Amino acid sequence: MISFYTWGTPNGRKVAILLEELGLAYDTIAVNLGRNEQFAPGFLAISPNNKIPAIVDHSAEGGALSVFESGAILTYLAERHGRFLPAEGAARYKALEWLHWQMGGLGPMLGQLGYFEKFAKEKSAVASARFIAEADRLLSVMDKRLADSHYLAGDDYTIADIAAYPWVVTADTFLADVLAERLATKPALLAWMEKIAARPAVKRGMAVPAL
Amino acid sequence: MISFYTWGTPNGRKVAILLEELGLAYDTIAVNLGRNEQFAPGFLAISPNNKIPAIVDHSAEGGALSVFESGAILTYLAERHGRFLPAEGAARYKALEWLHWQMGGLGPMLGQLGYFEKFAKEKSAVASARFIAEADRLLSVMDKRLADSHYLAGDDYTIADIAAYPWVVTADTFLADVLAERLATKPALLAWMEKIAARPAVKRGMAVPAL
Ligand SMILES: N[C@@H](CCC(=O)N[C@@H](CS)C(=O)NCC(=O)O)C(=O)O
Ligand SMILES: N[C@@H](CCC(=O)N[C@@H](CS)C(=O)NCC(=O)O)C(=O)O
Repeated sequence: MISFYTWGTPNGRKVAILLEELGLAYDTIAVNLGRNEQFAPGFLAISPNNKIPAIVDHSAEGGALSVFESGAILTYLAERHGRFLPAEGAARYKALEWLHWQMGGLGPMLGQLGYFEKFAKEKSAVASARFIAEADRLLSVMDKRLADSHYLAGDDYTIADIAAYPWVVTADTFLADVLAERLATKPALLAWMEKIAARPAVKRGMAVPAL
Repeated sequence: MISFYTWGTPNGRKVAILLEELGLAYDTIAVNLGRNEQFAPGFLAISPNNKIPAIVDHSAEGGALSVFESGAILTYLAERHGRFLPAEGAARYKALEWLHWQMGGLGPMLGQLGYFEKFAKEKSAVASARFIAEADRLLSVMDKRLADSHYLAGDDYTIADIAAYPWVVTADTFLADVLAERLATKPALLAWMEKIAARPAVKRGMAVPAL
């Protein structure tokens, strides 16, 4: 059994999708970020960076294992179950490069854009302009890649696609007022988004946690 | 032989340190970011996100392999040479969680702070305040971890330490005017920094590229 600590945000949904794709049994523990539950001592013991997602795999080899950081959780689950991340060769490192690209680029930059557009008490035109430009650049990099390749890592659906998908959905919904027009100019990205959206496990994962 | 595309910035230096730790033969190709060489078509074919670092391993199994994103490059080299990342078990995923924490947190947030403090033509007090607070929070998370643990992943030096070190140096040097006082309150982090700095391979890696 896996305990899955999450909230209704893109980084949590990456892990929910993979849990569903793998058909694993898990208990969802909603960590209410609006009530600052990510700072509770019990949660910090698992996730010292006070962020969701995190998991505890009670049936890990060698005893219960906690993992935080969505990129590390995706890698752990993919390696443990031998799916969605090739074990070796070029295909493995193509998946890892796009996974890290999501973790270090697409995620943080859309995250900052969301902060300055939606959450910040004081707006900053300079910061908004920077993060809109950066989001557009990153989405264009992804569109170019997907014009040449079925999935981010190549021919197969991997944890790189799973990591990027909830963020592209965020660009298309929560951030639509600043990004929808920009997304509309990226046909390969839109086609990929539709293809991923059609997967039953993705539909289920995007609905976790049920609130 | 490895072709190593880099510049004198923290993300490049992570890879330089690991190449030195592993004692690998490599050719350094300086990509001058000041002259926008990261947008040259030949470089984009290897690194479609127009950023250093990137490598081409001409002696990879199965033929030449290019990898971009520092976190993916560190993982590739560590797995290929069987060092600085345990092959399995809890120790492996502790290293990967802190590697992803650096990739998704410490790196992008110090990077944005550097942008708004040092490079932006128009300053934004709101953005500076946000990224100073976020940098301080992340450095405190690291300090707490290192108060309990010799290295980020536990008892052993791994690619998680190699990923974080050049960014902590950046906090202590390039960003000293905003972060030095904050670093001074983090004794476990400072002790770790000294311990890593003393490694001969780290000294050599921090001097790449020679300009
Ligand atoms: N790099 C982390 C980012 C996680 C993250 O940003 N989580 C947000 C929600 S999407 C969070 O928990 N924020 C609460 C806080 O920062 O206090 C990952 O990919 O797991
Ligand atoms: N997530 C990437 C970030 C790489 C990065 O930000 N590289 C910077 C230098 S430290 C760069 O090449 N910037 C040039 C540009 O963005 O045009 C990694 O870790 O490899």
